[in-house]
Amino acid sequence: MKAKQIVLASRPKGSPTLNNFRSETVDVAELKNGEVLLEGMYYSVDPYMRGRMNDAKSYSPPFDLDQPINGGVIAKVLESKSDILKAGDIVLGMLPWKETCTASEKDLKKIDTSIAPASYYLGVLGMTGLTAYFGLMNICKPKKGETVVISGAAGAVGVVVGQIAKIQGCRVIGIAGSDEKTKLLKTEFGFDETINYKTTKDMSKAIGMLCPNGVDIYFDNVGGEISDAVIANINFNARIALCGQIALYNSTDTPMGPRLQPMLLTRSVLMQGFIIGNFKNEFPEGIKHLAQWVKDGKIKFTETIENGFDNLPKALLGLFKGENTGKMIVKA
Amino acid sequence: MKAKQIVLASRPKGSPTLNNFRSETVDVAELKNGEVLLEGMYYSVDPYMRGRMNDAKSYSPPFDLDQPINGGVIAKVLESKSDILKAGDIVLGMLPWKETCTASEKDLKKIDTSIAPASYYLGVLGMTGLTAYFGLMNICKPKKGETVVISGAAGAVGVVVGQIAKIQGCRVIGIAGSDEKTKLLKTEFGFDETINYKTTKDMSKAIGMLCPNGVDIYFDNVGGEISDAVIANINFNARIALCGQIALYNSTDTPMGPRLQPMLLTRSVLMQGFIIGNFKNEFPEGIKHLAQWVKDGKIKFTETIENGFDNLPKALLGLFKGENTGKMIVKA
Repeated sequence: MKAKQIVLASRPKGSPTLNNFRSETVDVAELKNGEVLLEGMYYSVDPYMRGRMNDAKSYSPPFDLDQPINGGVIAKVLESKSDILKAGDIVLGMLPWKETCTASEKDLKKIDTSIAPASYYLGVLGMTGLTAYFGLMNICKPKKGETVVISGAAGAVGVVVGQIAKIQGCRVIGIAGSDEKTKLLKTEFGFDETINYKTTKDMSKAIGMLCPNGVDIYFDNVGGEISDAVIANINFNARIALCGQIALYNSTDTPMGPRLQPMLLTRSVLMQGFIIGNFKNEFPEGIKHLAQWVKDGKIKFTETIENGFDNLPKALLGLFKGENTGKMIVKA
Repeated sequence: MKAKQIVLASRPKGSPTLNNFRSETVDVAELKNGEVLLEGMYYSVDPYMRGRMNDAKSYSPPFDLDQPINGGVIAKVLESKSDILKAGDIVLGMLPWKETCTASEKDLKKIDTSIAPASYYLGVLGMTGLTAYFGLMNICKPKKGETVVISGAAGAVGVVVGQIAKIQGCRVIGIAGSDEKTKLLKTEFGFDETINYKTTKDMSKAIGMLCPNGVDIYFDNVGGEISDAVIANINFNARIALCGQIALYNSTDTPMGPRLQPMLLTRSVLMQGFIIGNFKNEFPEGIKHLAQWVKDGKIKFTETIENGFDNLPKALLGLFKGENTGKMIVKA
């Protein structure tokens, strides 16, 4: 049996291109005891994958050259030599970008599609939702009445952060890159105010106008000059969660900017970089809250779904151009 | 009755000079009920005073133009209309730079000179020691065997941080600006390793050599390029306490440097700006530990004492040139 896979053909310098990927057809491994044969249904594409294309020390190991990219995948069990999983089950795993593959039952988690659509387990009920939940609740510790600013607010994590912050009684300001996105943040996701950074000349002033008492919490998905403008308005005792720095991922030189420490010092600000793995012992608690809020309609979730396994590289590149609203997924 | 005082004559642009201060003789106010007449004994000069010379929003309010500078002072009670304090008592207070002044009993704390010399209450048993204690213990949470780097290590706070870190079982590396200071850190204060930043060409490499497993804790008194070099070697899950940024206090432009957020994000690093007031409810606990360690000889303390009230401005300017080892104090 043969299947298509997508491998990392070369490491990008600066912005990745389609040439950094290669599609090829390979043999699928023989099924062993304790394993299942899987057909990929939904593939997650995420900003953190840019970092893994480099050969650099980071929180997740680099992708290997000439080996399949891997990430979160929802798959259907076609055939089983496992006592736990049976044909027809829908599972979640960190799996290679292959149309069909084998995997050990130990590396898979069966999901319940009666609670939410299968793809939600890559998003609001998966790493995306947990990242929003723990970044906001455990690092930023929102208090009722505080002002929360979110960059990359229309991204998969951003829309969930904003809605959790509203549930906590905060005033929520979202920064995004199009009028379509900022409109959606207000009408669909209940944000109080929004800023389109692409059409705003003086970001620092715009944030200052919307946050007259300063920014108490900054959930940063973006970095760069947008963050400079937010931090210029930071309040005493503020908390900044560093979740992503997508504005800088494709830089080749060391990015330069204003030094932050004087501001963080004089205003007693906390800044904390995090990855979701830091909170893995608390995942069940996070999932429980998120599932309840989704069920109660308190958290809405949006996906941008590209069709076709072959479009995986294109979808990933699209993330860096802001082509998604909410979670970006490829449906095989 | 008349007394000399030192006022802020003008706000400095960049590095302050003696011209920013003015000495003048004024009447001492009449003693009221609940007040005492004080004679200044020891005056604290501290890096944070530079910030108060500017007219900018910060953790402590700006000094007023044409008004006396104020700060930590140890004084002797000359005359009392207080039921709590009597003539001859030695007290600590936030007091103006006046040779003689009146103050309310409410704003003064009697000190016990049988435990330690009076001037220690401006240092290791005062704000300096508490800053070291809470910055290290509450923000950095040292664990046995971790590597701690301290910038401005020969300063008043730095020498205490290093000794507390040694008590906690850490490996301690101090950065200072002369061979005399680095030698003292090793022989007098028990630091494991030191770096003289003025004679070291590649600071990042030098830190990397001394911290082969990365920097777990960075207690930053200095900022600027020294911090860039430390953060280039920061470990996963490291903690950075921002205590001072003396390298930048005299800048007129916004200082620029490499953006920190990508490093803090990918390595899950915490950075926390703080002032000692954040921990005021826990002061008694901190003082208790510090006094015990001083009594047991586990914490040694050094002072640089300038003689003469008139030398207060000169002593403050000297801080920014690194003329002190340990706590800088002026004895009247």
